[in-house]
Amino acid sequence: VRKGEQTRQAILDCAVDLASSHGLEGLTIGALAERMQMSKSGVFAHCGSREELQIAVLREYERLFIDEILKPVVGEARGLTRLRAIMDRWINRMAAEALSGCIMISGAGEFDDGPGPVRVDLLRMVLSWGGELIKCIAQCKQTGEMDAQLDPATVVFELSGLMLSLHHDARLLQNPRAISTTRESLNRLLASYGATARQFSRGNSSNTPFDTSASQSR
Amino acid sequence: VRKGEQTRQAILDCAVDLASSHGLEGLTIGALAERMQMSKSGVFAHCGSREELQIAVLREYERLFIDEILKPVVGEARGLTRLRAIMDRWINRMAAEALSGCIMISGAGEFDDGPGPVRVDLLRMVLSWGGELIKCIAQCKQTGEMDAQLDPATVVFELSGLMLSLHHDARLLQNPRAISTTRESLNRLLASYGATARQFSRGNSSNTPFDTSASQSR
Repeated sequence: VRKGEQTRQAILDCAVDLASSHGLEGLTIGALAERMQMSKSGVFAHCGSREELQIAVLREYERLFIDEILKPVVGEARGLTRLRAIMDRWINRMAAEALSGCIMISGAGEFDDGPGPVRVDLLRMVLSWGGELIKCIAQCKQTGEMDAQLDPATVVFELSGLMLSLHHDARLLQNPRAISTTRESLNRLLASYGATARQFSRGNSSNTPFDTSASQSR
Repeated sequence: VRKGEQTRQAILDCAVDLASSHGLEGLTIGALAERMQMSKSGVFAHCGSREELQIAVLREYERLFIDEILKPVVGEARGLTRLRAIMDRWINRMAAEALSGCIMISGAGEFDDGPGPVRVDLLRMVLSWGGELIKCIAQCKQTGEMDAQLDPATVVFELSGLMLSLHHDARLLQNPRAISTTRESLNRLLASYGATARQFSRGNSSNTPFDTSASQSR
């Protein structure tokens, strides 16, 4: 049994690698068998159909992602310190992946049309990650480091936007400044979430440099 | 000659439609011939090879994009009013495209690996659009509606991030709130660009709710 598990894990490692550079759609039993120097039926025996393999790759990627980004930050103080640590690790991972690409992001492009079990699992994974971020953002509101009025889902939307822009610029544009721009934008964004909180905590709602009239007038 | 031009335009319209829903990679001479009820050689005679067709589709998409988003706003006041008009139109277009997908964004995912003439043309198109936004952002700085210290390329990075997040959430997550969240985030983002400008214009650099220490300490 142990040998079988080892072989399955070796195939899966290879499959994650292949999907990172060629997309989940580029992941075929044939290509994998060739890389592993195994027969197609051997790959199938360990990992099942192509669709089952794609889902196994998503789950393995998710495990690696959580291990690298979420698990190490549990020791950090709740609130902004922990959110910063998460974002720093996410940016670092994206920087390391720039040459291959993030399976979660490229997968979204591949599977955003039509139904199917791979799309369902990708959706579960993206929503689950969003849920982790929302938990952390809610803690930032509790500690007073973020404005109590902020909608955590909107914050996730904006933070994800930066990461999508980073993925886009690092890969398509091959912009060497993409990482430093992301860090700069993240700093400004996080500061803006705190700005209104500090402003409210001073009870100073007039003469506000953070102009909310623009968003109300539309 | 005129008849030929009409036929080419009809094929191109159909090709843009096909690429919107199936991606540039899903655009084949065969699929197009079938939709147009023409022979493959007929399509080829009017539009050339598959690669030439993909590039023609990108250019046609760009023409439509500019016609719909950029041309109508030249009458708007320079600065923030014009930038807002552009972003409003871009969001509206994205909302209308949510069921099919934006060729510029999905194309980035398809062609962000490896070289080739399609990637080169997509890159030209994305950079050209970024250049238009930078022009507009520079005017916002001239009118004093944006902080003079802001790097226009960073602003483009952030605005594009919102649009990428919108495309992602509207398509993969099919989130019905994606459009309203984008507008809300855009309003807050634009307000934050102005906040520092207003703050500087008052010469009040102490007691600032827009905390820049976070970005300096990193």
